[in-house]
Amino acid sequence: MTSLPNLANLRIVLVRTRNPLNIGAAARAMSNFGALDLRLVRPFERAFREAVSAVGAAPLLAVAQEFDSVAEAVRDSSLVVGTTAIGNRELLHELYSLQDAGAKIRRRLATERVAVLFGSEKTGLANRELSHCHWLLRIPTREEHRSMNLAQAVAVVVYELLRGTRKATAKCKLTSTATDTETLARINAVLCDVLNLSGYIHSRSAASAEEKLRRMLLRFDLRSDDAKVLLGMLRKILWKLQSNNSA
Amino acid sequence: MTSLPNLANLRIVLVRTRNPLNIGAAARAMSNFGALDLRLVRPFERAFREAVSAVGAAPLLAVAQEFDSVAEAVRDSSLVVGTTAIGNRELLHELYSLQDAGAKIRRRLATERVAVLFGSEKTGLANRELSHCHWLLRIPTREEHRSMNLAQAVAVVVYELLRGTRKATAKCKLTSTATDTETLARINAVLCDVLNLSGYIHSRSAASAEEKLRRMLLRFDLRSDDAKVLLGMLRKILWKLQSNNSA
Repeated sequence: MTSLPNLANLRIVLVRTRNPLNIGAAARAMSNFGALDLRLVRPFERAFREAVSAVGAAPLLAVAQEFDSVAEAVRDSSLVVGTTAIGNRELLHELYSLQDAGAKIRRRLATERVAVLFGSEKTGLANRELSHCHWLLRIPTREEHRSMNLAQAVAVVVYELLRGTRKATAKCKLTSTATDTETLARINAVLCDVLNLSGYIHSRSAASAEEKLRRMLLRFDLRSDDAKVLLGMLRKILWKLQSNNSA
Repeated sequence: MTSLPNLANLRIVLVRTRNPLNIGAAARAMSNFGALDLRLVRPFERAFREAVSAVGAAPLLAVAQEFDSVAEAVRDSSLVVGTTAIGNRELLHELYSLQDAGAKIRRRLATERVAVLFGSEKTGLANRELSHCHWLLRIPTREEHRSMNLAQAVAVVVYELLRGTRKATAKCKLTSTATDTETLARINAVLCDVLNLSGYIHSRSAASAEEKLRRMLLRFDLRSDDAKVLLGMLRKILWKLQSNNSA
């Protein structure tokens, strides 16, 4: 018995891509392997839909969606994975090899939407963008030559996700699904308000605090029912703090 | 873990490549994965060594060898594998999926030299060129969109050959440890106080609430550094609620 990953649930998100030819080439690789949902976050060159490198992938490129932020692009995904070549950046996430990451993502794709993020050619994903990720994956390139061409990286990742069929294994099913990004954003917003009112966060550091909290909440890997409970608690606490303040 | 492939025994042979940018991009992918022996059979453009697409792979491109025929390029290899997108060409060879081919090639690479051939962008490998191959491999692209970019095909093949080795699966996990039971109990206690003061928990259901919260906190699978942050937040919120109440 084998089960195929559901690539219809896969979103490939290219963030601040500089070269439209790379967008076209990534689209071609996706189309070759049947991953058809491409999302662009603030591409440097807006005229990417004409990229000649998208040989055979014009239909995919025509319906690619554009977003102003990573947050919007991953809103409908319950698992967000960042790709990194880990240069000198400090690592704040769990990191898996593509092979291990592939196994994890394939399992999730069977029932959930998964977004895989690729940063700009020069700088990769910025810390702020990484803060939307549950964990990171790394393609096993050599230490002496880590940085891959963007579209080649997309090709290798999508190939790995399609690769092989997994033997069905007897596994205890989770009774609850993962939390969607929107609920997490709501929890984060209320938590920030609570921590502001308690004096835990000072207004001048609010932005970095929000980012740190998002990273932490993603690490919790909340189930949707727990997320609901947590949101309920936080709202109650917030209401109490607000009513105390206005009293 | 299966035997390590010896990529020093791998030759990537590009036959009649038309676009020198594809040669450069293939060189980059090879260099990323540590396959360093590139061979060109009658490249259309002889000035391929200057290809700007070979980012970081100039050393590999500088020593790439040129040949006048496939026969000469594969002379020192004991296994020759052709790549194909199988269009309408009649198949005269055994054909394996990349995954199965990868396993076969990896075994041979341990002790023998293996050449993998890639044909020109437009026409693939000609029948005469295929006649040097022991068998063929096919990357599992969709029937609706079979033809891959040449350098992406090289990237995916070399990745598959490297895949499954210790190097490819090495996982670096964050070093932070799991939270000890005592810290969890402390978090739980402060959280209960906070929820009591906020009116979320009613005193008559306090016991069952505490148990439910403990289960939830355990599901979060907190890292020890996150647990410290969480405890700090909750203490601050508790302090604020208490000072509001006594005001």
